[in-house]
Amino acid sequence: MKTFDKNLHPHRRYNPLLGEWILVSPQRALRPWQGQKESLPTETRPEYDPHCYLCPGNERAEGTHNQAYTDCYVFDNDFPALLRDEVVFESDAPDLFQSKPERGINKVICFSPNHNLTLAEMAVPDIAKVVDTWTTQYAELGSQPFINYVQIFENKGAVMGCSNPHPHGQIWAQSSLPTQVERTQHHLRAYYEKHKTSLLADYLKQELQQQERLVCENGHFVALVPFWATWPYEIMIVSRRHFGNLLAMSHDEKNAFAQILKDVTAKYDNLFETSFPYSSGIHQAPTNRVAHPEWHFHMHFYPPLLRSATVKKFMVGYEMLGEAQRDLTPEQSAKILRDLPTVHYKTKSN
Amino acid sequence: MKTFDKNLHPHRRYNPLLGEWILVSPQRALRPWQGQKESLPTETRPEYDPHCYLCPGNERAEGTHNQAYTDCYVFDNDFPALLRDEVVFESDAPDLFQSKPERGINKVICFSPNHNLTLAEMAVPDIAKVVDTWTTQYAELGSQPFINYVQIFENKGAVMGCSNPHPHGQIWAQSSLPTQVERTQHHLRAYYEKHKTSLLADYLKQELQQQERLVCENGHFVALVPFWATWPYEIMIVSRRHFGNLLAMSHDEKNAFAQILKDVTAKYDNLFETSFPYSSGIHQAPTNRVAHPEWHFHMHFYPPLLRSATVKKFMVGYEMLGEAQRDLTPEQSAKILRDLPTVHYKTKSN
Ligand SMILES: O=P(O)(O)O[C@H]1O[C@H](CO)[C@@H](O)[C@H](O)[C@H]1O
Ligand SMILES: O=P(O)(O)O[C@H]1O[C@H](CO)[C@@H](O)[C@H](O)[C@H]1O
Repeated sequence: MKTFDKNLHPHRRYNPLLGEWILVSPQRALRPWQGQKESLPTETRPEYDPHCYLCPGNERAEGTHNQAYTDCYVFDNDFPALLRDEVVFESDAPDLFQSKPERGINKVICFSPNHNLTLAEMAVPDIAKVVDTWTTQYAELGSQPFINYVQIFENKGAVMGCSNPHPHGQIWAQSSLPTQVERTQHHLRAYYEKHKTSLLADYLKQELQQQERLVCENGHFVALVPFWATWPYEIMIVSRRHFGNLLAMSHDEKNAFAQILKDVTAKYDNLFETSFPYSSGIHQAPTNRVAHPEWHFHMHFYPPLLRSATVKKFMVGYEMLGEAQRDLTPEQSAKILRDLPTVHYKTKSN
Repeated sequence: MKTFDKNLHPHRRYNPLLGEWILVSPQRALRPWQGQKESLPTETRPEYDPHCYLCPGNERAEGTHNQAYTDCYVFDNDFPALLRDEVVFESDAPDLFQSKPERGINKVICFSPNHNLTLAEMAVPDIAKVVDTWTTQYAELGSQPFINYVQIFENKGAVMGCSNPHPHGQIWAQSSLPTQVERTQHHLRAYYEKHKTSLLADYLKQELQQQERLVCENGHFVALVPFWATWPYEIMIVSRRHFGNLLAMSHDEKNAFAQILKDVTAKYDNLFETSFPYSSGIHQAPTNRVAHPEWHFHMHFYPPLLRSATVKKFMVGYEMLGEAQRDLTPEQSAKILRDLPTVHYKTKSN
């Protein structure tokens, strides 16, 4: 009988943040691909597009106009998934038909007035302004009495359902903790109560020793492919210091965060020499006015591409009904990402 | 203050099978779509395609040839995600780095020798043969000592990562309960222990009274859009009788199951007059040689399309980091599906 080798044998890995297992099939990385190919994004966009509803000064939905903004620009989503209004709710529905109204606020954040940039190509000081805006929004939204959690995220690329290439992200702030956040908090808290330390601080310590899943790092943040990564090139950015949310960041930490955002997104673009699609988002403490020593600031990047700019991993079938599955091991992905330059392939000089 | 109206106000609904909430935003159904459009499948396929590795007699990977099969045809997946081999495993890995080898068997099932059919256009007796094959496979795979769970599923359509339009599904049988199945079993069991009845039997009773989420039904099975449906046109097929797996089906039940598979998939094709993509799969009792009175046979259909044959719902950003979100309510989707004919749009005569 052969001895288990994680680079050869199918195995499951445990995600301690979500409390679930994923299936890793390293032996399957070489199967031929005959399925759907994504179309490549058109690489040439103007700095200003008169038809883009996110460019400065342009008309949005329902006749509103954007300001002639010069940095980061925040406005209320014109088609919000959540509404501020309180409604009267009484329910005598049977147990298996539980529902409840949900209040919230949806914002859109343009990262730059420049239509043809992305985080990967923005200057670090301009990314720092995005981080400033996230921080202000987290504080402002979080101070509303009916808001208990603020989800900051970005969908990048048409393949991720992003309907406009203008660099932008979103914020959905709401009364309840969303499912994934609640689950994460549950596991962070159980660990904290047991060990009196941060799960992610302890995890990071071991990753820094093991080295094999590190992608890049600086004085305040580390980017790595988690041991339990689901998406082929998934990355998690973790703060070295144990703090719970954006408001706790020092000036230096903010700049270091901007720098690692630049490094991670530039490496991503360099991987297949394409504007790399992903969904990313910050997981941090709820704003619900109680202490959250269990929370440790981190950011997830979930990118769909698998083998090239046009072949993505489909999380379908077995994955939807059974569990998440990957072919390439996290260690293999981390090595590929680690070995890529942080200088963007289009500029070769920033 | 207005009174809560599920057709107007954002709310969360609870999925009692998975123990998680989803966000429903009915007010958002009308936002304009400017994002990616899927390409339409080519509708004209030959009955036999000499280049298809699933057609009878043709060469597959590595020089193997398919039999000249005439009904349903099962073979071992040439690129399995799981392997049969047992490996020696000892681990002293720290708590946050848990992994374990996983054994299993991957099968491919061609539903028909005819390259240009799908379940939606197959005759009911031929679909019954597919159900027979699933049953035999469940029994055979489940009797292997190292197999404890058998996941039967289908990925249909290029948009679902299906690399070959030849009508086929897959089976992944394995030692462990996959994440989604374990979670489902946990909730089915907790309910069963508390009430001494099947969660899905009780749920079905109430759905049959409320009527508003029913899609179609026959003497033995009901198809409905679950109260907690995530995908725009998600459907669950539930058996009226409380039984745990395919082996418990009577002859009549098998035929009724084949019939409702035909009705559901034909309605789907009729919705946008296109070969409707989806992932589907059966959730049933594990084969781990203990009694499972909590399990109640059911089948999920998770289809991605939202507004037309080319516009899908993207489960990205907020959904990946926060929780699943839908615009159209399950009641609206159910009404649309219920009102569609079961006669396939291409034939108008079967
Ligand atoms: O096995 P296939 O059809 O090549 O592959 C498809 O289904 C599998 C099982 O759901 C997934 O793991 C793959 O990502 C998907 O592309
Ligand atoms: O708000 P957008 O960019 O129009 O829409 C996109 O992001 C949302 C939030 O992740 C998702 O709910 C939508 O399915 C997706 O298409």
